[in-house]
Amino acid sequence: MNSTIETLLSHRSIRKFKDQPLTKEQLDTILASGIAASSSSLIQAVSIIRVTDTEKRKTLAQLAGNQAYVESCAEFLVFIIDYQRHAAIKPAINAEFTELTLIGAIDAGIMAQNCLVAAESMGLGGVYIGGLRNSTEAVDQLLDLPPCTAVLFGMCLGHPDQSPEIKPRLPMEVLVHENSYQPLDQQLVKEYDQTMKDYFASRSDNRKDMNWSEQITDKLCGESRPHILPYLNSKGLTRV
Amino acid sequence: MNSTIETLLSHRSIRKFKDQPLTKEQLDTILASGIAASSSSLIQAVSIIRVTDTEKRKTLAQLAGNQAYVESCAEFLVFIIDYQRHAAIKPAINAEFTELTLIGAIDAGIMAQNCLVAAESMGLGGVYIGGLRNSTEAVDQLLDLPPCTAVLFGMCLGHPDQSPEIKPRLPMEVLVHENSYQPLDQQLVKEYDQTMKDYFASRSDNRKDMNWSEQITDKLCGESRPHILPYLNSKGLTRV
Repeated sequence: MNSTIETLLSHRSIRKFKDQPLTKEQLDTILASGIAASSSSLIQAVSIIRVTDTEKRKTLAQLAGNQAYVESCAEFLVFIIDYQRHAAIKPAINAEFTELTLIGAIDAGIMAQNCLVAAESMGLGGVYIGGLRNSTEAVDQLLDLPPCTAVLFGMCLGHPDQSPEIKPRLPMEVLVHENSYQPLDQQLVKEYDQTMKDYFASRSDNRKDMNWSEQITDKLCGESRPHILPYLNSKGLTRV
Repeated sequence: MNSTIETLLSHRSIRKFKDQPLTKEQLDTILASGIAASSSSLIQAVSIIRVTDTEKRKTLAQLAGNQAYVESCAEFLVFIIDYQRHAAIKPAINAEFTELTLIGAIDAGIMAQNCLVAAESMGLGGVYIGGLRNSTEAVDQLLDLPPCTAVLFGMCLGHPDQSPEIKPRLPMEVLVHENSYQPLDQQLVKEYDQTMKDYFASRSDNRKDMNWSEQITDKLCGESRPHILPYLNSKGLTRV
């Protein structure tokens, strides 16, 4: 197993950071790694807003649902869909929103993961902050996002001050299908539920009595965010 | 610079592969690396369909816009949004589609990039196939995708039989902003256009006389895919 695979397989989200900045070289390496990732048809529809302003950080931490590490991490990056630059070059662009939004979201995931992997390979850690989408309008205004751009998610980066257990995932047999979609094997979910129950009961922090199946209705409804479509509309990302 | 950063920074998409399969260990490592990636609130809304059937591969290559490497690569993985398993466990799930689709798309990008990075770290190569979204209905039927799932993109993997140049990206000053969105510096775009013109004119394969600005209107309109929203509708991924 090479060191890259070791990095990938030992991923855990870091939410507690030492009070230590990243060097300019570390940050530049992380950003360059993100930019080097694949981009759909080289459209390059993603931008990163690096937030260094302490007041903005504090506000973003609240807007994300009181996630203090948004304020305390060494670096906080916000990934946005960005067709503003294309509109600035070619005002006539008029495409279907769902597809453009999909391209932006997929490419942002690809770019951001390169950033996180680069950071982790250097002994740093981080966590994605989807909670920014709780307050799209306010985040948008705080970062002065123009038309044809939209906030997607944030990423905290820094020197880890915790070493959480790796969170178990659904087994490969459930997540990977061959040639056609395979119906869910409820027995495998049952076993995974037990694994997650054990994990939640025994992990170092934030122990609870819950399994995965019990979580998902709450999670999906809690993450529902009905304001997202009106928000994308308001940003001109819904032209059909 | 560690070897992971070297892998990330030397990425180029591979579209020509040797006639040599991946070992089971290589494939398992790639899939395990994808599964180890972050998942929004541990919802795990992504599945992978590994396509080994040669007839299905041939059809997918055509559906993606005659991309022969979909047929000839060692492994072809299709990444899908998957809320079918959640619906199977909790039929009452009723959330807002735009948000669920965003979560699926972002998480698929994150997972897929871990797969590609794992492959590249082992000397393998690959390319994303967004062209599957040219023919969502047909791909969906070919892979027997049930309700609450939707095809996003494919990924070819294999042993590289080409060594293309690294494709230049927009400069970091354009892609990375600080504290608030910075208006586009047209001078930087002009310089990038010249860089891309030189790249297109001098690369080993598929030379052409074009710059980036000239490309994007065509690309964005060509990639517009107005059938995407009706497709997501038809899969039950548009409940509001």
